[in-house]
Amino acid sequence: MSSLFNGGIKVSLFGESHGKGIGVILDNLPAGEELDLDKIAEFMARRAPKKDGMSTTRSEKDIPEILSGLYNGKTTGTPLCAVIMNSDQHSSDYGNISHIARPAHADYTGYLRYNGANDPRGGGHFSGRITAPLVFAGAVCSQILEHRGITTGAHIASVKNIKDESFDPVNITAEQLEAVKSRSFPVLSNEAEEKMRELINSARESLDSVGGVVECAAVGFPAGIGSPMMDGLENIISRLVFAIPAVKGIEFGNGFGCTELFGSENNDAFAMKDGAVTTLTNNHGGILGGISSGMPIIFRAAFKPTPSIARPQKSVDFKTMTDEELIIKGRHDPCVVHRAVPCVESAMNIALLSALIDNINI
Amino acid sequence: MSSLFNGGIKVSLFGESHGKGIGVILDNLPAGEELDLDKIAEFMARRAPKKDGMSTTRSEKDIPEILSGLYNGKTTGTPLCAVIMNSDQHSSDYGNISHIARPAHADYTGYLRYNGANDPRGGGHFSGRITAPLVFAGAVCSQILEHRGITTGAHIASVKNIKDESFDPVNITAEQLEAVKSRSFPVLSNEAEEKMRELINSARESLDSVGGVVECAAVGFPAGIGSPMMDGLENIISRLVFAIPAVKGIEFGNGFGCTELFGSENNDAFAMKDGAVTTLTNNHGGILGGISSGMPIIFRAAFKPTPSIARPQKSVDFKTMTDEELIIKGRHDPCVVHRAVPCVESAMNIALLSALIDNINI
Amino acid sequence: MSSLFNGGIKVSLFGESHGKGIGVILDNLPAGEELDLDKIAEFMARRAPKKDGMSTTRSEKDIPEILSGLYNGKTTGTPLCAVIMNSDQHSSDYGNISHIARPAHADYTGYLRYNGANDPRGGGHFSGRITAPLVFAGAVCSQILEHRGITTGAHIASVKNIKDESFDPVNITAEQLEAVKSRSFPVLSNEAEEKMRELINSARESLDSVGGVVECAAVGFPAGIGSPMMDGLENIISRLVFAIPAVKGIEFGNGFGCTELFGSENNDAFAMKDGAVTTLTNNHGGILGGISSGMPIIFRAAFKPTPSIARPQKSVDFKTMTDEELIIKGRHDPCVVHRAVPCVESAMNIALLSALIDNINI
Amino acid sequence: MSSLFNGGIKVSLFGESHGKGIGVILDNLPAGEELDLDKIAEFMARRAPKKDGMSTTRSEKDIPEILSGLYNGKTTGTPLCAVIMNSDQHSSDYGNISHIARPAHADYTGYLRYNGANDPRGGGHFSGRITAPLVFAGAVCSQILEHRGITTGAHIASVKNIKDESFDPVNITAEQLEAVKSRSFPVLSNEAEEKMRELINSARESLDSVGGVVECAAVGFPAGIGSPMMDGLENIISRLVFAIPAVKGIEFGNGFGCTELFGSENNDAFAMKDGAVTTLTNNHGGILGGISSGMPIIFRAAFKPTPSIARPQKSVDFKTMTDEELIIKGRHDPCVVHRAVPCVESAMNIALLSALIDNINI
Repeated sequence: MSSLFNGGIKVSLFGESHGKGIGVILDNLPAGEELDLDKIAEFMARRAPKKDGMSTTRSEKDIPEILSGLYNGKTTGTPLCAVIMNSDQHSSDYGNISHIARPAHADYTGYLRYNGANDPRGGGHFSGRITAPLVFAGAVCSQILEHRGITTGAHIASVKNIKDESFDPVNITAEQLEAVKSRSFPVLSNEAEEKMRELINSARESLDSVGGVVECAAVGFPAGIGSPMMDGLENIISRLVFAIPAVKGIEFGNGFGCTELFGSENNDAFAMKDGAVTTLTNNHGGILGGISSGMPIIFRAAFKPTPSIARPQKSVDFKTMTDEELIIKGRHDPCVVHRAVPCVESAMNIALLSALIDNINI
Repeated sequence: MSSLFNGGIKVSLFGESHGKGIGVILDNLPAGEELDLDKIAEFMARRAPKKDGMSTTRSEKDIPEILSGLYNGKTTGTPLCAVIMNSDQHSSDYGNISHIARPAHADYTGYLRYNGANDPRGGGHFSGRITAPLVFAGAVCSQILEHRGITTGAHIASVKNIKDESFDPVNITAEQLEAVKSRSFPVLSNEAEEKMRELINSARESLDSVGGVVECAAVGFPAGIGSPMMDGLENIISRLVFAIPAVKGIEFGNGFGCTELFGSENNDAFAMKDGAVTTLTNNHGGILGGISSGMPIIFRAAFKPTPSIARPQKSVDFKTMTDEELIIKGRHDPCVVHRAVPCVESAMNIALLSALIDNINI
Repeated sequence: MSSLFNGGIKVSLFGESHGKGIGVILDNLPAGEELDLDKIAEFMARRAPKKDGMSTTRSEKDIPEILSGLYNGKTTGTPLCAVIMNSDQHSSDYGNISHIARPAHADYTGYLRYNGANDPRGGGHFSGRITAPLVFAGAVCSQILEHRGITTGAHIASVKNIKDESFDPVNITAEQLEAVKSRSFPVLSNEAEEKMRELINSARESLDSVGGVVECAAVGFPAGIGSPMMDGLENIISRLVFAIPAVKGIEFGNGFGCTELFGSENNDAFAMKDGAVTTLTNNHGGILGGISSGMPIIFRAAFKPTPSIARPQKSVDFKTMTDEELIIKGRHDPCVVHRAVPCVESAMNIALLSALIDNINI
Repeated sequence: MSSLFNGGIKVSLFGESHGKGIGVILDNLPAGEELDLDKIAEFMARRAPKKDGMSTTRSEKDIPEILSGLYNGKTTGTPLCAVIMNSDQHSSDYGNISHIARPAHADYTGYLRYNGANDPRGGGHFSGRITAPLVFAGAVCSQILEHRGITTGAHIASVKNIKDESFDPVNITAEQLEAVKSRSFPVLSNEAEEKMRELINSARESLDSVGGVVECAAVGFPAGIGSPMMDGLENIISRLVFAIPAVKGIEFGNGFGCTELFGSENNDAFAMKDGAVTTLTNNHGGILGGISSGMPIIFRAAFKPTPSIARPQKSVDFKTMTDEELIIKGRHDPCVVHRAVPCVESAMNIALLSALIDNINI
């Protein structure tokens, strides 16, 4: 029961929202991989809150210091540790709510799990802030994947009932995946961006919040990687995606949609193309039997609306065991979906690199 | 990369569809747990194909022989191994398709993954048949959970576009969960059953297949069990559920539905009830921050339509690398969703018992 | 806390001495490896008791039935399960001692660990009998290593105070390692064999037992495999060797002997030989920093004298909590060291194949 | 293949000798355990080099900064990360030897393992310096064990041929284990200390080094903890002890000595004492079948002489593949055994706490 992903890559996360520092150890990385620290910073900046009304006003510089595992600009192959010191902490904001459970947060369950000894400030280890080192890890893995011609990317598929266009599951390209990364608000359609921004602003103004769906894809991932049963790509990716707070669902390829099709509609016909085996459609999301098919890998993750809203809410004080009304102070995101995009990519990157490393090649 | 779930309980699955035998080792079970073998047989019978036109006509007696780990009717605490010998094998049915990829199956990806050395007969280790030992494992865990007042159950939430009623996420009872187990077709609504049976029959007659959604719930599971990040209940359950062939999605509580709500709608208000902390609604599906809240645990899993259909399909011969038309012979399920119900319960049972065992108590 | 080795290869052992069957699942094996079942049987026969007064008269045919993971004579890459049914069980021999702790056995500790629910007959899961599937696993790994030019072997280094010659740590060859396997009593020196046999016979006649040391070596293992810290070759090998009942110590290379040397004596000078890096001596036992150096890998394991002796012994009844005198009936080995030789090799084989598979190669 | 111990407690180590920092994440600790930071500092000081000619003159302040997992002086139960920044680095000392393999070091094997990308300065991740965070982890676990009445301790059993007295395996007390910790040179006998110091000084003066044996014990550890086969106490302890650089052997209880006894001599008779089951002797070292017996747990670890000696040594340049003479500069320990004492205790502490946490208690 740990904050450790123990796959091909071992990712050990630590930190609390208002503790001294947060960070990650990445172990079992391949040695000799050149890392571009500026690109890592760019990747992480996509997760950081921006001053555009879309997210918390908490300022997170989040400059990771790499303490080990990097030598002459390349991975050493021994554990790579990165630390981000916390600075802009407003712990006092949280002083008065420590035993009144914030709805949809882990205050109450964490209190039980840790016998009241966990750090409650800002959610402690349950905070979305711990996705910063997860994203660092994802950024590192991303570069190692790129060295092998593998590109991943993601976009906001929806915010509440506003939908973006979808990735083309058959023809999506690395260029398209890269393009969306350069947008401050990661969608494919300008029109969707405008409507989503409006909706988020409106939610913020009405002291409310919204959730949405992130769609993630990988291209260039070789066919034949993964395993049936417990260590399939779906198993690994989903285990990592559910490490991101607020995720309540995941679906691969056509996902829940495939339950409404006949087999004759959902089955992806195989066909030779340019001398290679492909499928004409990609309802399977690039994974069959837990193993990559060579088609783009595609999944979607559902994020619930941000639990922290400024409206008064009914709750209980779990220490005194009495009903209480709760008003949450502090700075919060009216929507986390845009900031979740690099988190979801990171989960994918860690999973894919892990599967590659676990592939037997002796 | 293995067929091993290495959580609190270690579940190591083996076998191929047309090999000598299939089975499972369950390791790290608590010692001294009385097992009712008749109840295990009943549990497994719910997965076995029935002669009602709803499933394959392959006859699977599937009587597991327990070779170890059980002494005087109780678990010894040392590894429990159960073996099911394969008997009714029609391997010749599969002779002519071994290198033509069946769409939506793992023939091609498995061939790549294992360099052509895997057993292709009937899907080999990728076969849904390997869920028989998974269900055995789930049945064992089910009884150990019951000894602690924990009950799980599942039903068909939908087949294609036909929907069953839903579990009441707040008030669902152990009795209701047990009741659905005694039905030959596990739904809550008689009307839904009738329509679903019709639909499945019609799909079978038109040489097609359908998929659907299974909804699973647990009651009586204590609050405070689980972990944030990588070993949360959602992480563990999803890893196990994706071990079931044909699963393409999973969602907890309100799942993808919560992305269409405002935070003020989705947040479950806490309230004291009979001296205990509860929530008035259960959009969170009994899990907050990866940890149980004491409310019913609820999730849904999406099953794609059975890939094996008797219609001619476009495909490729991945050995000769040529386009081919494929006609699948043999016996197949026009729908696997009703047989998947105990599989999903089993994934839940293994996950919950694992989480209980991983709970620190020193 | 399990009977599972979860390294590059996953080895999941099950069974009790007097249960229905014992066996093993080997998971994550490379696919397409041809297995010679006769050679596996020969390997296992080296562990089986022989009718020469050196071991128990319990007859163990021990013909493993492979239920999965082998197709057309080759590994499929999916889990390989082998089962050995128990047949020659004299459980009644053990009837009267179930709560009187046999000294140096795990009766008492097992009773506590499993709350009295473990199978006590013949030691249950603690029995040396469970080394039969371990040796099966070792025999399989042995062949996969041989396909890559790697040979392992072992001999009795000592029985009580009688010493065999030692392997030449620098020049030991595959031929020498193979040669000792064909001996019914695996030593290098005929003179040592004679004295050891005499000693074992004499111990048997005086209702006593003896222990000894097994020396194990590998040649042909490539340099550069392993890891520092927790997953070094020494860590993995020792973890596996201590899975063999009766082992109380392990040392690599010069081992405890190196503590009596100066650094200038113990350091192995490097030197070029035939274009390759070698060392002139091999006090390091082929492992530096947990990683193979290309020199023969050498270690020794200490086996305590067989705990079961027919003499009356002081003990306690741990149920009634009273002092008792104990007389052990049944068939027992006056010495297990010769039968332990293939067990130790098996631990080495599993460890080396695991390390090879864990080696990153992407 | 990682620097991660993934047992009941997860210990993830990172760092290189001359990198920015070294440290550790401890995950799955029980929550609410009060930690005395001064006692941790004292524990770590026992490992630090002292200015008494017995060790390197490298100054290691080694003040760990705890970044997470500690709140109000107690463990939170979420990952505890401690970082030690490197300061007194003399990297230039190592500049000229980076491709000439230092005998008995991991320069050559590490170069192969990491394709030349590992940090070679001062041994990089292979350095004994990485035992500082290991000892931090051991100090933390030590306190959590003490809260449960469990005390561990160790002493130098020998330096080269000079032997200390031994722990009394039956009657050793917590007080005796504590007493040896307060000695600057951890032995039981003053006479042994004097001779050992002389020997180490003499080795240093002759540009040589010596090794030795550390004996470690635990008292108060409850009976019935551990497991047979792969996760026995011996398996876990040995895996952790071999994580300490320079260890070449380990033995439990009577260890290799038991191979020279008859079974009738080596078997420890059980006897009731003060209403509890005990053994009259303790050749088994407190572990039977991998499970604690309630008697003191005792083992010994063999440390080779420090590989770094100032004498000219024969070696090779593994980049140019030529024979070379090597002269090692820099500051080195003529003996590491006294500094190894808290390292060995730490391995024991981590192993025992892991086993306690893995104990099923549901």
